[in-house]
Amino acid sequence: MPVKNYQLLLNVFLDHLEKYKAGLSSQSPKELYEPENYILSLGGKRLRPLLALIACDLFDKDPQLALDSALAVELFHNFSLLHDDILDAAPLRRNQPTVHVKWNTNIAILSGDVMLVKAFAVLQNYGFKEFKKLNILFNQTAVEVCEGQQEDMNFESAETVIVDAYLTMITNKTAVLLGCSLQMGAINAYADETDQKNIYLFGKHLGIAFQLLDDLLDAFAEDAEKFGKQTGGDILANKKTFLLLKTMELASDRQTSALKKLLKLKEKDAVKKINGVLALYQELRIKDLCLQEADKHTQLAIAYLDKINANPKKKKELKNFALGLLKRQV
Amino acid sequence: MPVKNYQLLLNVFLDHLEKYKAGLSSQSPKELYEPENYILSLGGKRLRPLLALIACDLFDKDPQLALDSALAVELFHNFSLLHDDILDAAPLRRNQPTVHVKWNTNIAILSGDVMLVKAFAVLQNYGFKEFKKLNILFNQTAVEVCEGQQEDMNFESAETVIVDAYLTMITNKTAVLLGCSLQMGAINAYADETDQKNIYLFGKHLGIAFQLLDDLLDAFAEDAEKFGKQTGGDILANKKTFLLLKTMELASDRQTSALKKLLKLKEKDAVKKINGVLALYQELRIKDLCLQEADKHTQLAIAYLDKINANPKKKKELKNFALGLLKRQV
Repeated sequence: MPVKNYQLLLNVFLDHLEKYKAGLSSQSPKELYEPENYILSLGGKRLRPLLALIACDLFDKDPQLALDSALAVELFHNFSLLHDDILDAAPLRRNQPTVHVKWNTNIAILSGDVMLVKAFAVLQNYGFKEFKKLNILFNQTAVEVCEGQQEDMNFESAETVIVDAYLTMITNKTAVLLGCSLQMGAINAYADETDQKNIYLFGKHLGIAFQLLDDLLDAFAEDAEKFGKQTGGDILANKKTFLLLKTMELASDRQTSALKKLLKLKEKDAVKKINGVLALYQELRIKDLCLQEADKHTQLAIAYLDKINANPKKKKELKNFALGLLKRQV
Repeated sequence: MPVKNYQLLLNVFLDHLEKYKAGLSSQSPKELYEPENYILSLGGKRLRPLLALIACDLFDKDPQLALDSALAVELFHNFSLLHDDILDAAPLRRNQPTVHVKWNTNIAILSGDVMLVKAFAVLQNYGFKEFKKLNILFNQTAVEVCEGQQEDMNFESAETVIVDAYLTMITNKTAVLLGCSLQMGAINAYADETDQKNIYLFGKHLGIAFQLLDDLLDAFAEDAEKFGKQTGGDILANKKTFLLLKTMELASDRQTSALKKLLKLKEKDAVKKINGVLALYQELRIKDLCLQEADKHTQLAIAYLDKINANPKKKKELKNFALGLLKRQV
């Protein structure tokens, strides 16, 4: 991640997180708080809390004002990973056993619940008005993330999914929390409401572009290992990504029939399956269509950022950071 | 439940709940909101929301001021039932299939998560200061309820549990939410902080007494069917109630050895097991000790209620209501 310019901000957050984690070790029952400490210690980019600090700093306010907002979004994000790992029956997270595997499902459910409650509690350090503004935004976002997760689960069993429904799903599941993180930082900086809305929309469209490019990466990455993923994993799993859904939408009768056969192939025919689907993607120029859709959202994100009344030098830094995040994806 | 004097208040809440439920039917994805509607429609005493309204009314304020606090505690209570039913692998709730059985565990986890988030959201109708005060109390209570649930799960696998730890567990799992419901109503009535604290403690000790008498009822109820429970169910399940833990604490070597043998008996020796344990309870006068402990908390509850500066007639009504709740238990 191109955090170079933001390394100081990231370090400030990491210190804050360490203090929070240190507080967990004395809390009981330990079955509830050890899993929280564990998942928070698995690492990660800490992108969401960093965005909260960056947004506060963008308006020339002390980024430390946004530290508890940053902590709240990171706790919520980790809560959602913890519960999603149960839903997906995922054995590993960052190459370590998931909480429901290392402890058990009951502990994973309940420690996730406490983490969700505590994500809201850390905002109590803010004054009345700020607390309520942060809460309304954070609460609405939390609902949307849960809705996105359910939409994603529904897609697994759905026969067909239209591309627009997919875009709504990734918006809810992934993008809104990025927008929320930025807006919370802007609230902590007492930015005006138009700027708050614009930075939210910047984050949301950045998140959509990021997820679309993540879909592309899964299918086309030449250097997949670098990203810890197997190229074609989504194809093998029949995952209804933008690429597959767009293919279903545009395919001729012949292509639809070929696709249906390919989707039925199992692990033992992995190479045949991946190559067959990739060939269809190529025939229909799906990569370009996905890049175009991602680019549309990148341009929208940048347009919203441009509108914001803030330190121009810092706006440029944030733009470069955002473009760098997306570049990592292609 | 002796709600006679409070039937009007209960009806006001039930109307409010129906409006909330009507709003759920238009929300999507339906897999998240149908389970919420379902569990809220299974009925129940609605004791917690009623307490919020009663507390607000006690200070001669319009009880409708507490309607959203009442809704919040009822949503939270139902969230906790929904997730607890997963943890306990319970097939039925109020003689209807539990959510994880009627839908599936994934949907039960995620619809519970949304319900927890929305329990906090309904408080947003209150002004800044009230919102924050309600949130701090409600959030802390939610953490304690989760801790109580985990403590309860820990007891299942623990060799021995001391009676004090049991009292802490039931305080967290059951009693604090009653105190919280009352205090939230008092906050909505702008009661002063001493009165708020006293009504919280009234509810907490009432809750402890209630749970102790519930333990007694399970072992000694002569008219068990009336309460939808099987007499001796806790004994059969080796459930570490006050009764069993006090017996373990007071038993002589001979009694300990007899108890250990009884605890190993299975379903086919149900009658022998129940009668054997009840005989030990009688030898050690456990029923009286449990009644004494419950009475101690009832007296404490009443003492806190007496201290409150509020309408004396309404205080008396609430006292009678509380004593009536406890009487149902013995």
